[in-house]
Amino acid sequence: MSSADPIKITTKEQAQEFLDSFDTFLFDCDGVLWLGTHLLPNTKEILQFLTDAGKQLVFVTNNSTKSRKQYTKKFAGFGIEVTEEQIFNSGYAAAVYVRDFLQLKPGQDKIWVFGESGIGGELADMGYEYLGGEDPRLEEPFNAETSPFLVNGLDEKVKCVVAGLDTKVNYHRLAMSLQYLQREDVHFVGTNYDSTFPQKGHILPGAGSMVESLAVSSGRRPAYCGKPNMNMLNSIVSATKLDKKRCCMVGDRLNTDMRFGVEGELGGTLLVLSGIETEERAFEVSEEHPRPKFYIEKLGDMYDLLKN
Amino acid sequence: MSSADPIKITTKEQAQEFLDSFDTFLFDCDGVLWLGTHLLPNTKEILQFLTDAGKQLVFVTNNSTKSRKQYTKKFAGFGIEVTEEQIFNSGYAAAVYVRDFLQLKPGQDKIWVFGESGIGGELADMGYEYLGGEDPRLEEPFNAETSPFLVNGLDEKVKCVVAGLDTKVNYHRLAMSLQYLQREDVHFVGTNYDSTFPQKGHILPGAGSMVESLAVSSGRRPAYCGKPNMNMLNSIVSATKLDKKRCCMVGDRLNTDMRFGVEGELGGTLLVLSGIETEERAFEVSEEHPRPKFYIEKLGDMYDLLKN
Repeated sequence: MSSADPIKITTKEQAQEFLDSFDTFLFDCDGVLWLGTHLLPNTKEILQFLTDAGKQLVFVTNNSTKSRKQYTKKFAGFGIEVTEEQIFNSGYAAAVYVRDFLQLKPGQDKIWVFGESGIGGELADMGYEYLGGEDPRLEEPFNAETSPFLVNGLDEKVKCVVAGLDTKVNYHRLAMSLQYLQREDVHFVGTNYDSTFPQKGHILPGAGSMVESLAVSSGRRPAYCGKPNMNMLNSIVSATKLDKKRCCMVGDRLNTDMRFGVEGELGGTLLVLSGIETEERAFEVSEEHPRPKFYIEKLGDMYDLLKN
Repeated sequence: MSSADPIKITTKEQAQEFLDSFDTFLFDCDGVLWLGTHLLPNTKEILQFLTDAGKQLVFVTNNSTKSRKQYTKKFAGFGIEVTEEQIFNSGYAAAVYVRDFLQLKPGQDKIWVFGESGIGGELADMGYEYLGGEDPRLEEPFNAETSPFLVNGLDEKVKCVVAGLDTKVNYHRLAMSLQYLQREDVHFVGTNYDSTFPQKGHILPGAGSMVESLAVSSGRRPAYCGKPNMNMLNSIVSATKLDKKRCCMVGDRLNTDMRFGVEGELGGTLLVLSGIETEERAFEVSEEHPRPKFYIEKLGDMYDLLKN
């Protein structure tokens, strides 16, 4: 599937040919467009160039702590204008999964949320009532006899637990999520499996480490919605009507971004080396990760090639 | 190994013969001696009878939230007098593992604790300095730039993370434990794998669900010390010098207590049906769990048989 050697894009002709092969570009954000709070050079320029060339741009992130609306503000802070419809985070992918795959009914079925505002915000936007999440009553120490979420029994209308990264994780949140997961009629959805994420030079516990804690206590497996899971791609295809063969995934991780593009049978994959991968890793033939079709040092280089 | 049908003890002769076969009895506590805060009938009487008959009694629990000292108080509250030396909880087993197997040096090597007072208390009793645990500074929201555990770098003397059940679990505790687990020279020890525990009619997240969260984020496997892991039995044998062939494990769970006795090649196993197992389950031939050698409705029945 990705048996050919990855092609490094180094000339204007290669860059133009690459561009002409696709109508839609899916971008991973951190490591591709920016590193934390630092925008990478020529990011704004290449995105504008692609937009002017009539390309469809979609931004795909496993971050579920911010809603899409909050994410547009992050872009705006860098001077990049994007609409909510261009953004797919794992919280939104989870909400689409709840609506389109599980077919739970807004206004009727409820969701228990373990996670931050990115999850609840997306569910609320679709009209779902949700419990848990950032509810301040969950800050109280857990006591089965006094928890306001337990004293009157569980809410029978809850039909799904959606879990993701929660930096406010505590025993009350874990215990209540488990109470709902013990009910057979309650589905179990995880935003994304990433076990860690980098922040200010530290590797911190990621969504997967929390969702898997609930998986251990409940003895259940969640349906994961983030990259590289196909639930994310299905959400994007269903919402944007893109042509997969004319679509290229751009990212900085072989095992999530490139896998996402290869397993999703997209027309192409472009690895940037501005994140965690190296040229050497890109050429590795391994069971562990696919190889990209194209690669480039950093996304901004594409702009330099194209405008010269 | 446990191919013969389990034998139900129903007569005085059987009970006496059973007693004569062993010098040491290892007792699981919850479900055998008591149910939560309710002492089972004739528990006190049978323990006294065995003590008077010259038997060695050892109490083995996977609970790591209380130290052995605190556990003696729980017994005292039921009017049962036991010494600290008779009690092996998973926190103590972890501390013995750190001392005897990992051979870390008290007064020199330090431990990072994720868990409650049962773990730190046992380590401190052995002379180890430990960090983390119930330190109130861990109650503050995690911030990599201000955490007092990070601002001056990690403590180079920490050589092990010991993790167990912590109902004060939060992101600060998870993130700091992960920082130490990212160091190759730091060992990873889990008190016990139990994914849940019952409390007041609810099933709550257990030690295993937290230790496994750290296992996911760190990509490492812990050495577990509680039942049915042999590290627990090694700790007991090493401390009490018991003769395994003249030792019987008494418990209410096939998959932890009976497995512990069978895999530890103890002389015998006695299942009580006062906890979660049934007579039918005890007879099951399954890859999932071993069968006990003996069984009885409840431990107190043994007293009724013996004194009549």
